[in-house]
Amino acid sequence: MAGKIIDPWGSELVEDYGKIIDDFGLDIFSPEIFPEPNRIMRRGVVFAGRDLKQISNAVKNKKKFYALSGIMPTSEKIHFGNKMVVENLRYFQEHGAETYILVADLESAAARGVELEEARKRALGFHIPAYISLGLDPKKTIFYFQSENMGVVRLASEASKRITENEFKAVYGNADPGRVYSATTQVGDILFPQLKERMPGIIPVGIDQDPHIRLTRDVARRLKQKYKFFLPSGLYHKYTPSLDGGLKMSKSKPESVIELPEDMKSVKKKIMRAKTGGRDTVEEQREKGGEPEKCVIFELYKQHLIDDDKELQRIYDDCKSGKLICGEDKQNCCKLMEKFMKNFLEGVEKSKKDISKLKFIIK
Amino acid sequence: MAGKIIDPWGSELVEDYGKIIDDFGLDIFSPEIFPEPNRIMRRGVVFAGRDLKQISNAVKNKKKFYALSGIMPTSEKIHFGNKMVVENLRYFQEHGAETYILVADLESAAARGVELEEARKRALGFHIPAYISLGLDPKKTIFYFQSENMGVVRLASEASKRITENEFKAVYGNADPGRVYSATTQVGDILFPQLKERMPGIIPVGIDQDPHIRLTRDVARRLKQKYKFFLPSGLYHKYTPSLDGGLKMSKSKPESVIELPEDMKSVKKKIMRAKTGGRDTVEEQREKGGEPEKCVIFELYKQHLIDDDKELQRIYDDCKSGKLICGEDKQNCCKLMEKFMKNFLEGVEKSKKDISKLKFIIK
Repeated sequence: MAGKIIDPWGSELVEDYGKIIDDFGLDIFSPEIFPEPNRIMRRGVVFAGRDLKQISNAVKNKKKFYALSGIMPTSEKIHFGNKMVVENLRYFQEHGAETYILVADLESAAARGVELEEARKRALGFHIPAYISLGLDPKKTIFYFQSENMGVVRLASEASKRITENEFKAVYGNADPGRVYSATTQVGDILFPQLKERMPGIIPVGIDQDPHIRLTRDVARRLKQKYKFFLPSGLYHKYTPSLDGGLKMSKSKPESVIELPEDMKSVKKKIMRAKTGGRDTVEEQREKGGEPEKCVIFELYKQHLIDDDKELQRIYDDCKSGKLICGEDKQNCCKLMEKFMKNFLEGVEKSKKDISKLKFIIK
Repeated sequence: MAGKIIDPWGSELVEDYGKIIDDFGLDIFSPEIFPEPNRIMRRGVVFAGRDLKQISNAVKNKKKFYALSGIMPTSEKIHFGNKMVVENLRYFQEHGAETYILVADLESAAARGVELEEARKRALGFHIPAYISLGLDPKKTIFYFQSENMGVVRLASEASKRITENEFKAVYGNADPGRVYSATTQVGDILFPQLKERMPGIIPVGIDQDPHIRLTRDVARRLKQKYKFFLPSGLYHKYTPSLDGGLKMSKSKPESVIELPEDMKSVKKKIMRAKTGGRDTVEEQREKGGEPEKCVIFELYKQHLIDDDKELQRIYDDCKSGKLICGEDKQNCCKLMEKFMKNFLEGVEKSKKDISKLKFIIK
């Protein structure tokens, strides 16, 4: 490994992020490349990127660039991964990015059987308000529905001709037509803002989405002569760990995950059962101190619940010193989570009222 | 083989059509299933189909159905295969079909590098006028550009999720993303007319296009619960043979092919060199007679140049009896071809003037 992930509270929950960086050929993320890095950037939760120099330059020199992400309007739930995406989108939005949110209604219709009309209803009625509630500025955001964007289709069609079956399989494992169609459509989405005006773009995603970024960069390179596209940059955050300490919260294990929104009674129960960095007995913990690096609760604080670095440091120290015991800490976590969930839901309701003012493009 | 291809002048130029019917699991075409079959239907040039009963019923009972074909606006040339497609489209159009012509501009941009604007220009400036010149009634035809039709995209996206990689490979040999994108888009094109109103549809094509029909039928079956689509029917014509007697005219061998349009000087040269059913010497031919079944010139008469069955029969008999010798016959062929080419080009010019009256849909 060529460098070190800078994480002041060094999480040991998942040790394979270094390996991911090596395997995927990513750049390690250093928060100092961006002015006033946001919370998850400076805390090592954002841990890797691709081609960030061009975005850093654009931010510092106030040049045009874009930030883009998508919404899959299936269930009326999002997750902590979406929250981190919005946090990064918001950072770039506040630092000058033209911001795009696409609604993957074509995909939700084809892959999940959620009809276009229903997908539209869910996007407008929940997903977009949720993103706004989490910090996206609707006045500075350009929205579109995949099902109305022929520019994306045109790019997807061209992209498909620039990828061989073997390359596709090397990235995705197989070349199932459904996967091919989705992946090439995503390539179209990622490059779409440059149809109007070529500029660097940043796609903040969970690390599992890197294959799309890589594929899009390959395609952009091959379409260079025609479109002169900038290759899109990727920014990767760690997963929010599963409540039992595993790599990632997963809907397939309901006990491992907190959804947004989720009933607080259920959330509290899950938090009280979560894996911590506590010792076998209270006595032992008072003596040796806890291990916040191994604690899911601390990771929730770090990633989502505590904004103030000093407050986070205090909890870290109190845990380390044996002053703070897990039971008490979990009660605190429940309180913070309750507050967060309440704010989130109030924000959703508030944003719904302004939904008619959004800027949708049809191209 | 379950039956016999009815071809009153039994071409021996290509004997594998029986095998194709077996291999592809097609139905042998019997002209009597349609009232007043057109020239290529009654002459065995149209030789196979899929699911023609529903079209036959629609024609006879004046029920709604559609006929559909596409234009690939790359070079400003078409070929005799297109001419046969138009001949069949025209037949169905005259027998009540709602007729659709799609311009595959997305495909021409992605696969052939012909930009959308250029593709549009060529479609309006040549391909559509050429189809009208060959008999398509523009007033009864609905046109669209792939690049403007989101309904097709929506269907293509859904289709992609209903096909496995292995199925795709069994049909097309590989699952190259470009091929997947094109093929699923074609599925969307073929089913598109039923988005508005479900009804049987007939797709007249060269036999090499059957894979698309098969794939579309599979997809339509799998989308049945949602859309209740009729499975599209296919109607297959033989190829116009290569001038040297091979299976098919091919642009890759310029000597084998007559394009529409093509300079008559070049065409005449090619015709004079074409393979005939003539004997080694004129004397032998006078004595034994020629073999029109093996003659490319006779096949051109049958497929394209002679409308009157009696006239065709007379040539057949004169050749068989030794009365008609190849040199003289080729001169005759040149004359008929010249007349055809002149009419074709005049028709193109005439149709261009009315191009603004076409009915284009954007959906």
